[in-house]
Amino acid sequence: MTSILVAVDRRSRQPLYRQIYERVRSRVLRGELRPGELVPSTRELSRELGVSRIPVLNAYEQLLAEGYFESRAGAGTWVSSSLAGGRPATPKPRGERRVSKHAAALPPYQRPVWAENLGPFQVGQPDLHRFPIRTWARLVARYTRNMRVRALQYGDALGLPELREAIAAYARRSRGVRCEAGQVVILSGSQQALDLATRVLLDDGDAAWVEEPGYWLVHHVLKAAGCRASPVPVDAQGLDVAAGEELCRRARAAFVAPSHQYPLGVTMSAARRMQLLAWAQRAGAWIVEDDYDSEYRYDSMPIASLQGMDANGRVIYAGTFSKVMFPSLRLGYLIVPSDLVERFAAMRRAIDLCPPNLTQAVMAEFIAEGHFARHIRRMRPVYASRRRVLVEAVEREFGGSAQLVGDEAGMHVALLLECDDVRLAAAAGRRGIQVSPLSASYTGPPARRGFVLGFGNAAESRIAPAVRLLRNLTAA
Amino acid sequence: MTSILVAVDRRSRQPLYRQIYERVRSRVLRGELRPGELVPSTRELSRELGVSRIPVLNAYEQLLAEGYFESRAGAGTWVSSSLAGGRPATPKPRGERRVSKHAAALPPYQRPVWAENLGPFQVGQPDLHRFPIRTWARLVARYTRNMRVRALQYGDALGLPELREAIAAYARRSRGVRCEAGQVVILSGSQQALDLATRVLLDDGDAAWVEEPGYWLVHHVLKAAGCRASPVPVDAQGLDVAAGEELCRRARAAFVAPSHQYPLGVTMSAARRMQLLAWAQRAGAWIVEDDYDSEYRYDSMPIASLQGMDANGRVIYAGTFSKVMFPSLRLGYLIVPSDLVERFAAMRRAIDLCPPNLTQAVMAEFIAEGHFARHIRRMRPVYASRRRVLVEAVEREFGGSAQLVGDEAGMHVALLLECDDVRLAAAAGRRGIQVSPLSASYTGPPARRGFVLGFGNAAESRIAPAVRLLRNLTAA
Repeated sequence: MTSILVAVDRRSRQPLYRQIYERVRSRVLRGELRPGELVPSTRELSRELGVSRIPVLNAYEQLLAEGYFESRAGAGTWVSSSLAGGRPATPKPRGERRVSKHAAALPPYQRPVWAENLGPFQVGQPDLHRFPIRTWARLVARYTRNMRVRALQYGDALGLPELREAIAAYARRSRGVRCEAGQVVILSGSQQALDLATRVLLDDGDAAWVEEPGYWLVHHVLKAAGCRASPVPVDAQGLDVAAGEELCRRARAAFVAPSHQYPLGVTMSAARRMQLLAWAQRAGAWIVEDDYDSEYRYDSMPIASLQGMDANGRVIYAGTFSKVMFPSLRLGYLIVPSDLVERFAAMRRAIDLCPPNLTQAVMAEFIAEGHFARHIRRMRPVYASRRRVLVEAVEREFGGSAQLVGDEAGMHVALLLECDDVRLAAAAGRRGIQVSPLSASYTGPPARRGFVLGFGNAAESRIAPAVRLLRNLTAA
Repeated sequence: MTSILVAVDRRSRQPLYRQIYERVRSRVLRGELRPGELVPSTRELSRELGVSRIPVLNAYEQLLAEGYFESRAGAGTWVSSSLAGGRPATPKPRGERRVSKHAAALPPYQRPVWAENLGPFQVGQPDLHRFPIRTWARLVARYTRNMRVRALQYGDALGLPELREAIAAYARRSRGVRCEAGQVVILSGSQQALDLATRVLLDDGDAAWVEEPGYWLVHHVLKAAGCRASPVPVDAQGLDVAAGEELCRRARAAFVAPSHQYPLGVTMSAARRMQLLAWAQRAGAWIVEDDYDSEYRYDSMPIASLQGMDANGRVIYAGTFSKVMFPSLRLGYLIVPSDLVERFAAMRRAIDLCPPNLTQAVMAEFIAEGHFARHIRRMRPVYASRRRVLVEAVEREFGGSAQLVGDEAGMHVALLLECDDVRLAAAAGRRGIQVSPLSASYTGPPARRGFVLGFGNAAESRIAPAVRLLRNLTAA
């Protein structure tokens, strides 16, 4: 038992047993000790209070007699489960309650509902049923069993050296990122990566280009830092750089997902990439490349990252293990220009010291033993097949009345369709099929409507019926 | 093997095998594929490229013949280890390289050196050799073995419900915190807790009281958010509230460690607590209570938290498992006023989505099965004994020439001593004894000098010799 935080005053004229009794009782009545909670044994409490055991025994006897405590031999003593839980007394907020402007500006937080039955089209969901959970469990158990005291200690703010090496090698070979392990910063995922980049690169009030339509959580990150998101249209080539220069010439950064844009799924063309890199160099601006799901490409070879084309060290590359491994792992990374590493480390330490050892170490072994590459290799045909079933179902049901885009890579496509997508998404939700309306990804008037369809966690047999349901709803 | 990112162009007049050969070779020469790295098998690559196996076999044969690749039956094919690693080509930083004002203001990052032999007086170090690492490993293995798909999914931004319940119950009973589980926000440690509180409560440019002398990382957190740290003297009663009101009337928050101040170890008096709470209510300001090591108290009973005395919901309480469990666990928490929970959740999601599932779940079981309380109970006499040895050694060596303060609780004491503590700490460091000079904890002219002596990880036999060394150095 941890302490129950009662104190005795030896100079008081009140007997010790009475002091103990009254203090425990009042803690129970105030709800600080709750029904069912274990209390220390009389031996433990007497030692803790530095008094003999007699007064503690007397106090407990009285608390038991009056029904505040219950006990059973071998099971200890606890606050009576039958007490009508005195549960008052969390402090009452009073007076001026001002929070920061940035906190006040954020949209409301809603508890996520990760039920397992949200239909086949959930966005950002890998197929967790096929994750090699046993292999993972085995590596975790093995690592923990052999863990040394040193592994319990604080680590480097930038992350575990083995994992930084493994990530750098992976990013070089599979993503064409030009980097050394020293440029890798291990974080908890894309979100912390975007936040850290924002805090290192942008001042309060600075503007940054974001894709329109785009990823909602980029907007939250910028708001949380007091920065202004300046939406720049995305067309079939990706972010329209010329439009960006007209709309917001003074942007200090651009947040883009050139490999597989969210939500449209566009792969940014080579010409646009060159244009964006040239703009950044000219403007002294930064590019944050969010490469959140490009491990999976289907018809063509993987596209090298924007970072790999950059000769001037303007690109900060963000990757995550949430999609290829699993979201609750909470591991992602930034690969930053070498001259900025030290500032990223200083900020990272100031806001969150260092990443946890266990998951980093096991992830490094998972990669080193080839499980990571194997899992990607196994999943690629699975996702490719789901995508094919989805494409065929859309062609069958919608024919020429809708257009499917962004199916070259990743785990979602966009179904372009002139309709009231918000209303239809709500209707589909009532029928058990959750789809994201495309227009909700715009900050301004939506240039396109339709649905974002995730297929990462879509059982093949459920795809065609769900597409038919969507078609019936849009036809109604 | 993951992809090696080569592409072929079927319309090219160059034969396929030649395209593959040249692209792989140039990736090796550019250092994107490094000596010793495994490459896909010919079967894998042909499947990936969607070409027959013949051109891939031919390309590999040539790469092997020219010494770019090596292979051994059963072990696969890899980039030759003997190649003088072409390692050019990380992009060269060029042009204006402006980072944010906040990032620029942070002190330099230095890689931590957590060698195991920094002497007995390292600060903030629990005795990790006594952590029940096998019990922990067993719970981790058990949890991982039985992990369900649902546990792989994103979780709530505020944390795992079981752990939030366990923390609320612990904080109520052992720290006198008045709270419900719904007020608990799980974070990665004190540092992220302080950062989150700052971002929710303070605007860029706002002032906050900090303790003088005080905890250096609080200064970093405030700097990272563009806030101004206003140092307020700490005396034998704790933070001098009246002085604070004179020095900086418009502070929007106070960051304090009332249970066991760092570095002086003072426990804030009841009168000062009332004064501080009254100031916060009057000024519409917030109090961030950093309760980083008060699990261990020695002569007296644990002191209830400041939060527990607050009737107006002005106190944000921060706790961590780094000291009682181990630092690389990366779990800490905030307990926030009920009306602020939603804003804390919104900001927490914007900057870091949610905490990792595995460590949260295992920590909840570690508490539920009584291991946590048992570990605290076992460690208390261990630390108490080290503290006694340290106190006695100081009395013996220094007599009346030095004063020891802050020994009621926690894992460090302050040795007050008129001396050039920075110079002496450097001298002690050269003799293998790392001590923190007290004057380094001041932002202004140091009112006191001496050393902060951690004893959490101090083997008893090493304490007396180390104190003697210190005395000899100061006498020299």
